[in-house]
Amino acid sequence: MNNWTVVEVLRHARHDWMNKLQLIKGNLALNKIEHVERLMEEMVLDARQETRLSNLKLPKFAEILLTFNWEKHPFQIEYEIMDEYCSWPMDDEKISKWILAFFEAMENSVEPFGENHLSISIELNEKNVRFYFDFSGTIKDIHYINNWLSEQKAFLKDILVKEISAGKFIAEIIV
Amino acid sequence: MNNWTVVEVLRHARHDWMNKLQLIKGNLALNKIEHVERLMEEMVLDARQETRLSNLKLPKFAEILLTFNWEKHPFQIEYEIMDEYCSWPMDDEKISKWILAFFEAMENSVEPFGENHLSISIELNEKNVRFYFDFSGTIKDIHYINNWLSEQKAFLKDILVKEISAGKFIAEIIV
Repeated sequence: MNNWTVVEVLRHARHDWMNKLQLIKGNLALNKIEHVERLMEEMVLDARQETRLSNLKLPKFAEILLTFNWEKHPFQIEYEIMDEYCSWPMDDEKISKWILAFFEAMENSVEPFGENHLSISIELNEKNVRFYFDFSGTIKDIHYINNWLSEQKAFLKDILVKEISAGKFIAEIIV
Repeated sequence: MNNWTVVEVLRHARHDWMNKLQLIKGNLALNKIEHVERLMEEMVLDARQETRLSNLKLPKFAEILLTFNWEKHPFQIEYEIMDEYCSWPMDDEKISKWILAFFEAMENSVEPFGENHLSISIELNEKNVRFYFDFSGTIKDIHYINNWLSEQKAFLKDILVKEISAGKFIAEIIV
């Protein structure tokens, strides 16, 4: 994991915000008010997801997801937290380690220079974390990710691979 | 100095951005397009100043200014970097220590619950850092800040107090 300084974190966050702001400015200049409103609504929703993630009391795990797209990876992620409330203390260290291992396995499976996108839904319930992964892009090595998942079976509560092909990977994994 | 985590830094930055975005959304809903454009222009200019500050290669000093308004202080700051280029290496530790000491002296001089605002211009040239401070608000103890500045004379290259009264303090200080 990267050791982010305050200056670096803010540089990346500012860069992301500025890109969105430029898009809004451009559309405003063209008087596309409805599109401007939609873009701003998206920004609010993204910020809300960031807040939910930050409220999980899993600082390491949150940091991994919040900073992932700022590092060089062969795929980009987006995430959604289905439920931010949970009454039990989760093991930040364990979940962080697991997600990093999963990302590494994905990195070894996908085409490095493709348009790769991983969407992650996270649901906390009944003392579990349920991940719903939806990958679109190019998987160059289906065997690698399949083998890795098989090896993981011993450590995880459940793995349900719903689709796996050269361009798609959908799985539900309970940690 | 606070030990900021990535999650905390992003929480504050997000909060600041969201406030500005809400203001833009509100004005857009009232169809005040010119005001929306002005607000967005201000956001771009603020971001530009943050970038300049972050480019000074003074990470500690930059962190102090970037995070100051997120901590509890009896005054808020704003800053402007007049020139971000300098060919000589500056002593981050020394400048950081000095600005923290100055902020502390100011905190001991101003009325804690007043509307206090400190504007800082920073100019880098001829191996110096020239600060131009402009404080508006309520100073409850002019002697304190005056004495502190007198004591500093031995350590600083120049101090020029241009105005000091119960509601105003303007000074040029070269570190």
